[in-house]
Amino acid sequence: MDELKTTMGLAHFNARYARSLDSNRLEEWPDYFEDDCAYVVTTRDNHAAGLSGALIYAKGKGMLLDRVQALRKANVYEGQSYRHVIGLSLFELRADGGTNAETPFVVIRTMRTGEVTVFATGVYIDTLGPDSPVPYRLRKRLVVCDSSRIDTLLAIPL
Amino acid sequence: MDELKTTMGLAHFNARYARSLDSNRLEEWPDYFEDDCAYVVTTRDNHAAGLSGALIYAKGKGMLLDRVQALRKANVYEGQSYRHVIGLSLFELRADGGTNAETPFVVIRTMRTGEVTVFATGVYIDTLGPDSPVPYRLRKRLVVCDSSRIDTLLAIPL
Amino acid sequence: MDELKTTMGLAHFNARYARSLDSNRLEEWPDYFEDDCAYVVTTRDNHAAGLSGALIYAKGKGMLLDRVQALRKANVYEGQSYRHVIGLSLFELRADGGTNAETPFVVIRTMRTGEVTVFATGVYIDTLGPDSPVPYRLRKRLVVCDSSRIDTLLAIPL
Repeated sequence: MDELKTTMGLAHFNARYARSLDSNRLEEWPDYFEDDCAYVVTTRDNHAAGLSGALIYAKGKGMLLDRVQALRKANVYEGQSYRHVIGLSLFELRADGGTNAETPFVVIRTMRTGEVTVFATGVYIDTLGPDSPVPYRLRKRLVVCDSSRIDTLLAIPL
Repeated sequence: MDELKTTMGLAHFNARYARSLDSNRLEEWPDYFEDDCAYVVTTRDNHAAGLSGALIYAKGKGMLLDRVQALRKANVYEGQSYRHVIGLSLFELRADGGTNAETPFVVIRTMRTGEVTVFATGVYIDTLGPDSPVPYRLRKRLVVCDSSRIDTLLAIPL
Repeated sequence: MDELKTTMGLAHFNARYARSLDSNRLEEWPDYFEDDCAYVVTTRDNHAAGLSGALIYAKGKGMLLDRVQALRKANVYEGQSYRHVIGLSLFELRADGGTNAETPFVVIRTMRTGEVTVFATGVYIDTLGPDSPVPYRLRKRLVVCDSSRIDTLLAIPL
């Protein structure tokens, strides 16, 4: 029963995360993270090779807030919108009482010009602390993208 | 526990809704609605601006039945098929005991000619009555599409 | 409650199935099947017409293992990766105590060259035995693809 509770808790968390981004409520995004957090975007190849080179590395909620402000100033959201499709999370409990979760995702992007593309696919590799409140907050979200060729617009959160 | 029940009930409802459309059992579609219902398709821009202009506005189950018959006469389903991907619903209970739900969707279209495209993405904004039976029926389904450029074949239910 | 248990059990099963394929852990794939199993890939048109002509017909776990070895020798996974999106299963219990399930899927393919396409959409029609262990194993997985034009690379499991 606890497993069901965690499964549905993660599914609900990711549904809200996706809605914030897909409905252009970008200011809500940092609140899905703990204060002392990391948000990292990398490619499947880099991750498999254990390379430290990430496309994006934001550490601490302050950097997430800075990123949101920068995106607003650049009006990045004006010309496009996202639609996340998020699969079921697979997870395991760590010895310290926290949770590790893996969740597949697909992001489809619609440009104001009408162009619709599969913008990114991959998996979220999440670390939640043992003291993560309900609803959850992320200690770390590592976004591993299937493609090695990521659009420069990737600056928008995945 | 009630929250889990509603979450799974909505997920099951949408899975059956999608199956009816994706397996060309179009005649089942009106039965997902109450008699006194509304099925509305609009764009994200129109919805955000509060504009009343909808691409499709069908009121009452009779209009849904008419639409099904028209689509059959036009053989719209002959040359194509849909595949819905439907995300987890987020919902809230209204003061009157009914439920409001938001559910993201992606529809992929396969043409008999072989062409495969992301046909539509968006969110269902659903209104269910306080007396909605189990399985659910929709009082209103507002389909908000991310793209403002909708194929004229949109006449097929989303 | 049993219905919820089966729904979540199937969702969890398919999430693990997808992860094995999408993370290139192809050797795990045969273990999702019973020893005396069938893995069949066909098209929607063939399936609707009741035609026996399948694109792929593998009978018995030995044939699945052979297929995995062949794919490794051909290095098919070197140049591409998959990302499954799997919807909620609809199921019914058979008189013999087993379960029949239908599950929609979308597979997005990312080529090393950077090309991203919707590779396949369709539905899994699964047969599970009355004595299927938990976690589940498939007695038969019939993969019905929406498109009649399947890439020759379909040799990779869907």
